[in-house]
This record gives sequence, C-alpha cells and structure tokens, in this order.
Amino acid sequence: MTQAPRMEFWFEFASTYSYPAAMRAPALCAEAGVTLVWRPFLLGPVFAHYGMQDSPFNLNPVKGAYMWQDMARLCAAQGLPLRKPSVFPRGSLLGARLITAFPDAPWTSQVVQALYHANFAEDADIGQDAAVRDLLTDAGLDPDPLLQAATAPETKARLRAATEEAIDRGLFGAPSMTVGGALYWGNDRLEAAIADAAQVNR
Amino acid sequence: MTQAPRMEFWFEFASTYSYPAAMRAPALCAEAGVTLVWRPFLLGPVFAHYGMQDSPFNLNPVKGAYMWQDMARLCAAQGLPLRKPSVFPRGSLLGARLITAFPDAPWTSQVVQALYHANFAEDADIGQDAAVRDLLTDAGLDPDPLLQAATAPETKARLRAATEEAIDRGLFGAPSMTVGGALYWGNDRLEAAIADAAQVNR
Repeated sequence: MTQAPRMEFWFEFASTYSYPAAMRAPALCAEAGVTLVWRPFLLGPVFAHYGMQDSPFNLNPVKGAYMWQDMARLCAAQGLPLRKPSVFPRGSLLGARLITAFPDAPWTSQVVQALYHANFAEDADIGQDAAVRDLLTDAGLDPDPLLQAATAPETKARLRAATEEAIDRGLFGAPSMTVGGALYWGNDRLEAAIADAAQVNR
Repeated sequence: MTQAPRMEFWFEFASTYSYPAAMRAPALCAEAGVTLVWRPFLLGPVFAHYGMQDSPFNLNPVKGAYMWQDMARLCAAQGLPLRKPSVFPRGSLLGARLITAFPDAPWTSQVVQALYHANFAEDADIGQDAAVRDLLTDAGLDPDPLLQAATAPETKARLRAATEEAIDRGLFGAPSMTVGGALYWGNDRLEAAIADAAQVNR
C-alpha cells in the first residue's frame, strides 16, 4: 500500500506571497497528481512567538516597500491582478475559520481563491462578515450555515491548534508547504514542494 | 548610442544565499549578454541600520535552521558542494576589500567564486590573511600587491561608501541585484534581474 502523494499548504489570508501561491497551487497539484491539503493558520501568533508585534513588512518599511514591488512583478508574470490592500495586514480571522471548518469541501479551493482575490485584487475587507457573505453567495453557496460553522467554538479551537502546530513544526512565515517532515517556505518554493510530494510518496 | 546591458550584483562573502547566486551569475550574465558588475558590501552595518546586531538567521534560530535545509536543497540542485561553515557569519571584510580594490580585474569572477567555495565548501576561514593568500596563489596571482591594495585606506573608504550606497538604495539583504533603479533581492531573483537587464538596456 502506497500513500497518495500529498502536500500541506499552510497559508494566511493577509499574507501577500500566499496570494500568488494559492492561485496556482490547485492546478499545479492536480497536474502532478498531488493532493493539496489546505492548512489555514494565523501569522499573528507566530510572529508574536518570535517577538514581533506586527508584520515584518510593517516593522521594516524598506523591506515592505520592496515586497510590494516584488509582488507587482510576480503577479504580472503570473497574470494576476494586484491592488495593494488599503489595510495591511488585513483581518484574516473569519476566512481562516471558514476554511478551518471546511478544509476539503468541493468548493474549498474556489472560496480560498475568491478570498485572496477579494483582498488583493478588489481591496475588499474580508475581515468583515459582509464581504465573505458576498463571495460565498457569488460561489452559489448559502452563507448562513457556513458562517455559523466558521464561528463555532470547536472551529476556533481547531484554528488555534493549527497555529500551535505550525509553530511546533518550525513554520515562521506563509505560505509554507510541508511534505512529510520537509518544510518549504515561500511562494518561490511551491514548485519544489510539489515535486517533492510527487516523488517522495510514490 | 545604447548603453550596454548591465546588472549590479551586490554581495557579501558571509551571506549564504549569495553563494549559489555568485556561482552561477557570471555564466548566466555572459549568456544573456549582460555585463556583471561586482558590488561587494558589508551586511553588518546594513543589519545594524535596521536594528539587528547579528544575522537574522542567528537572531531567529528556527529561521536559521530552515535556511540551512533550504541551502542544502538549492546547492544540491545546482551541483554545488556545501559544508556548513563552523563560524557563521564568517568574517568577510578582507574578501570584500579585495574585490572593492579589484572589481573588474580579469581574475575577479574567479577569485569571488574561490572565496565562496573556501567559505561554504571547505570551511576555510576567509577572514584570515592566510586563507586568502592561499586561494590567490592557487589562482596564479601574487598575493602581496593585491592584499596591500585591499587594505589601503582608500579601499576601506570605498567599501564603507558602497555599504552606505546600498542602504541609500533600499538594500536590506544579500544577494541583491540592481538594474537601473529596479531592485531584486535574493538568489531566487537572479534570473529575473538578468532578464530585466537584457531587456531594459537593449
């Protein structure tokens, strides 16, 4: 019995570099025959664990300014629209809870990508109920039961546990990919992680 | 009159990710018809400028541990030997001064690569005269006049000025590549920077 190839994709809806990665991960994984496991977590507690009370891109504005230039080039090369969010980092809790409650629904990848698009292409405040409701409705889903599950106590606890697991496994940023015990950090490592998953588990 | 395509390559002999970048930059630039301009600088004063008194990889050991895993994979993929230096960051001042004194000698690229190889493949202490003498001799050069020029007051001043220029131009790590006013940071961006230089300046 061989295990099906799988890659865990650890992401944050506020994370800039998670956006281009999340937009191409599903297609690349499908092509490679790798199961994509969506692993939402929160960067705030991870940064706090390492003594940072804000995004590193805000703590060092020079690095932040570079990051937006770099993102513009990356998104252009990938054919992705990019509009700098008016609030950074954007509140990502509701989206993270929603995907925590539904990590493998038939619509999960579509909604993950819709949340990223809303934040980074439409400057929509995905931290608010209204924006999330809109995009769930646009996806043909009934928002009420989904948002109820997203904010249930057991979902909140699961997201807290996932964030602790991220710290325990040595994650310090997003996106990160894990393939068994191997860790890959950053949008630039997505392809290598998928290739590793396709190979290792076969 | 069109300007010849050129890319400035800003590097630090102690910088891990500068190693794979420096080892492939000369060949890639030659292929693309881009003049590679070696720009040695010192990361210590840059990090200090941003409030860090050590390498970020030492300040956050979890990130440091990841970096060495990542480096091992990158070097393996590039066919480069890697032996973790017993001292990190390695003293890089002498090497930086040497290349500051001779940024475009016929042997500059060869000696840059020999210094990186000594530090990251042989665990040689390139901060010491002896190691630098050895590798210059191995390159068929007479070390005495070269080391004299490297430690001349005007060379020291030029290296300090280059480091200040790096900060002024928004550099915050190494390797960095500049093509006109465009900044690229990291080994992962070398190819994009070269492509930019080849295109922009033609």
